[in-house]
Amino acid sequence: MATDVEIALQFSPLPITEISERLGINSDHLHPFGRDIAKIDLKALTQNKQKPGKLILVSATTPTPSGEGKTTTTIGLAQAFSQLNESVCMALREPSLGPCLGMKGGATGGGYSQIMPADRINLHFTGDFHAITSANNLVSAAIDNHIYQGNDLGIDPRQIVWRRVMDMNDRSLRNIVLGLGGKMQGIPREGGFDITAASEVMAMLCLAEDAEDLKRRLDRTLIGYTYASEPVYAAQLKITGAMMALLRDALQPNLVQSFEGTPAFVHGGPFANIAHGCNSVIATRMAMQYADWTITEAGFGFDLGAEKFFDIKCRTANLDPDAVVLVTTVRALKMHGGKLKNNLETEDLVAVQQGLGNLDKHIESVAIFNKQPVVALNRFATDTDAEIAIIRERCAAHDVAFAETTHHADGGKGAIELAKAVIRSVTQNAPFKPLYDLDLTVLEKVRAVCKSMYGADDVAFTKDAEKDLKLVQQLGLTHLPVCIAKAPSSLSDDPELHGRPRDFEVTVRSIQINAGAGFLVILTGKIMRMPGLPKEPAANGIQLLKNGVIEGLE
Amino acid sequence: MATDVEIALQFSPLPITEISERLGINSDHLHPFGRDIAKIDLKALTQNKQKPGKLILVSATTPTPSGEGKTTTTIGLAQAFSQLNESVCMALREPSLGPCLGMKGGATGGGYSQIMPADRINLHFTGDFHAITSANNLVSAAIDNHIYQGNDLGIDPRQIVWRRVMDMNDRSLRNIVLGLGGKMQGIPREGGFDITAASEVMAMLCLAEDAEDLKRRLDRTLIGYTYASEPVYAAQLKITGAMMALLRDALQPNLVQSFEGTPAFVHGGPFANIAHGCNSVIATRMAMQYADWTITEAGFGFDLGAEKFFDIKCRTANLDPDAVVLVTTVRALKMHGGKLKNNLETEDLVAVQQGLGNLDKHIESVAIFNKQPVVALNRFATDTDAEIAIIRERCAAHDVAFAETTHHADGGKGAIELAKAVIRSVTQNAPFKPLYDLDLTVLEKVRAVCKSMYGADDVAFTKDAEKDLKLVQQLGLTHLPVCIAKAPSSLSDDPELHGRPRDFEVTVRSIQINAGAGFLVILTGKIMRMPGLPKEPAANGIQLLKNGVIEGLE
Repeated sequence: MATDVEIALQFSPLPITEISERLGINSDHLHPFGRDIAKIDLKALTQNKQKPGKLILVSATTPTPSGEGKTTTTIGLAQAFSQLNESVCMALREPSLGPCLGMKGGATGGGYSQIMPADRINLHFTGDFHAITSANNLVSAAIDNHIYQGNDLGIDPRQIVWRRVMDMNDRSLRNIVLGLGGKMQGIPREGGFDITAASEVMAMLCLAEDAEDLKRRLDRTLIGYTYASEPVYAAQLKITGAMMALLRDALQPNLVQSFEGTPAFVHGGPFANIAHGCNSVIATRMAMQYADWTITEAGFGFDLGAEKFFDIKCRTANLDPDAVVLVTTVRALKMHGGKLKNNLETEDLVAVQQGLGNLDKHIESVAIFNKQPVVALNRFATDTDAEIAIIRERCAAHDVAFAETTHHADGGKGAIELAKAVIRSVTQNAPFKPLYDLDLTVLEKVRAVCKSMYGADDVAFTKDAEKDLKLVQQLGLTHLPVCIAKAPSSLSDDPELHGRPRDFEVTVRSIQINAGAGFLVILTGKIMRMPGLPKEPAANGIQLLKNGVIEGLE
Repeated sequence: MATDVEIALQFSPLPITEISERLGINSDHLHPFGRDIAKIDLKALTQNKQKPGKLILVSATTPTPSGEGKTTTTIGLAQAFSQLNESVCMALREPSLGPCLGMKGGATGGGYSQIMPADRINLHFTGDFHAITSANNLVSAAIDNHIYQGNDLGIDPRQIVWRRVMDMNDRSLRNIVLGLGGKMQGIPREGGFDITAASEVMAMLCLAEDAEDLKRRLDRTLIGYTYASEPVYAAQLKITGAMMALLRDALQPNLVQSFEGTPAFVHGGPFANIAHGCNSVIATRMAMQYADWTITEAGFGFDLGAEKFFDIKCRTANLDPDAVVLVTTVRALKMHGGKLKNNLETEDLVAVQQGLGNLDKHIESVAIFNKQPVVALNRFATDTDAEIAIIRERCAAHDVAFAETTHHADGGKGAIELAKAVIRSVTQNAPFKPLYDLDLTVLEKVRAVCKSMYGADDVAFTKDAEKDLKLVQQLGLTHLPVCIAKAPSSLSDDPELHGRPRDFEVTVRSIQINAGAGFLVILTGKIMRMPGLPKEPAANGIQLLKNGVIEGLE
């Protein structure tokens, strides 16, 4: 089969103005970025549409190194809706540059289910991540400058919780000492960088309803404590106006199209462990306003991304998906059944059988939110009918719909069966029920997620976490939802436990207060907020060809 | 008078497609960024134009806190050319975000001589600075990762010369210790951040003739030394292909227009002390290809920016300006004559007279390059005729042309006299003569610039600088031009010495080898490669208004 870059070269895009026109967006609200990308003005978002379109959430079983193809399925499914002459639009996250150059490669789908132009979307796109990086780092520069210039607020350099960010996999910046070099060079203190996708500014931009809401969130962001251990908020630094100026355009969703010309809003990209893992509320709303069907995805597995989609995003923004798709693959279930990555191409019915526990758990988890999933089996060429039959039968046993897809090779045509199953499933879905009530204690909320989503027996808080919990109580923020940062590669907090782990306890190591985003980040296991590069980074294989084509981003 | 923001709101832009069409650029080569900005494909740059347009360099006397208005004059002058029905285009630097949020405010001119849209140009613009930041920091991440992953090249962490960058005034990042936190978090070492405008990637992008030339420059960039003190170049890290991918679009010049609709390529923004201080070669060439007159500027005073413009940019790119404008103001000369900033509004003939030495020196300096300046007096409302007469007479004594301008209040009309003087001066300018030959020793080159441009008696090298010099010799790079980093606020290396300092020696503290850019950065005095924020940063006054207008950027 053709490579993604070769397929991208076959692509003949419609002018983005036409994509936007077909959606019914007023051309005055379009700000083109080249021929294939546009930002849409927030003025295009009106509250007066009688009935917004239906919302479909695409999630997946626990990710494995084999790749489940959640984004690819989302794109293929949307293309299938187009082929069925349904009015459809995607709402997706923007890729982070760091992983593109690091381990993961691009994040624009693959094969004939890609969003385009993939190279631009994967690299700087319309600059949203850079704007977020700048806004975030302005806060840091202002904090250190405030201390340097006399420290009127009495900020304690040992108690600053706001970190700098960079959209790069750069482990060496995780822990640094800054302000060295003497009297003229700042005040020495410990600090560090997270990756931009993990920043609270990213989360705030993605949860904001509009510019005013974003400004309110920025203002109330906790950046540290005084020597008297009183909280200090971003508004006190007087730079949230400048942050808004930096974020003005980043708040506008980006419109692109898929290989088959299906529209997609690609906007915001918080990670799904340390942040809440879904595209912006604004993009979702805009898609729902202009299309009958909006297809969106949540990061990582259902336990991480979808749980946050429901308990944080849907609850905050008053959204409710009309259908849920759970993507899985034969290869992924084989890996959950104990096979290694280099050994997935030959039939192994036992491994598939052994891996089913992971699928079982996620199907059960969907039901907790009062929803009925459609299981989408993203079929690879080496999968056998017998392997697939095992999964199909298990879905039947759960009484959930099942559809095979071949959208990677076949585009939208390969997901028609899935699209039909999704449309049928809408009537089976009741209004969503959050996993926990906000007025529970923090411990109760964390326990609820760990027990019902991850299958844990219980939760333990370290001494540090208990100290953090006291702070949350002192600041009166116990009513916030919890955003649990956990290893994505396991249902448990141990990244090595595949399948459906049982008899484990989740250890909470610390709690970060994201007062602006409006959630508490509960850190379990050894969660990195700044990834590192592997020995052979993806960057080593990237080239700019003479014709302007970028090779090696897939 | 109206504020810059109020004037910006009066602006009725021509579609950027029309600006481009008037220049004669094929519409296939236009990549719009919104309605008012476009990137122009490098394919639009052909070598086969019979006779490129004339080039005018705008420089200035030594900058003072009163503001000379060099950029404003450049824009006003270009608008005057338009009013005279001449085919004209500007080639300007992109503003750096750091100073916009810090001390300086925006850098898009002012009054009725602004380039538009000022808010976008001053903030993220088309993302060029962010792309340069990413490309630069990819090198750093790759260096630290290489060491972490086994260090096959044997890079000595104590001898890494490549620094990270951020487009932010953040003094606390000048000197840091990174890689802390234990075995999994990298290798501890000293490091630091410069501002993006000071990065070698910026200089390389601005000096590159095309993508291939940029790749060659990136490949040969010196990033550090091995434990055996052998040089390590960026090509050895295998990431220059990915850097090219990151820089692909940043290499395309940005087209905008002034308040009166005069076209401007705004592209690249290296500082004029630690870097060479002019917009990209590509933008200058493109302007010269499509317009009869190209008006460009060099950073800071003539001694810093223009010297580098001639000795680095013109020599490398085989350019030669047909006219030179030297901008000055009554207020600036008063400050050079000893007055303070808060005391410039009342007539003071003595102070003007005492400040003339600074103008004298720069007029003499222009002649060293075989050129005849036109002195442009940027008139302020409080200037008196008697004050101006003093300057006019001094120019007559030098036998150089003089013109008053009022372009800030009057737009192009206020610079018609200047434009006519510039057109007349073209015949008086001989081919430019560089200040020094490249085959001189480094010391001889530095001495030549310090004596003839700055008026120094001599040059002293510290022990550190002498050690650096040995390295330059060992690497066989003594043939490179010198890029002297000096305080911009004085002709000397002491920032407090105004007017025309005499009887001083310049001390060279260290030498940085910019093998990719192709020059040696000679650091004198205490030059900061990363500015800090003042007690009340410009950011504190920036607001995003409800109508989307950004206030406080001027």
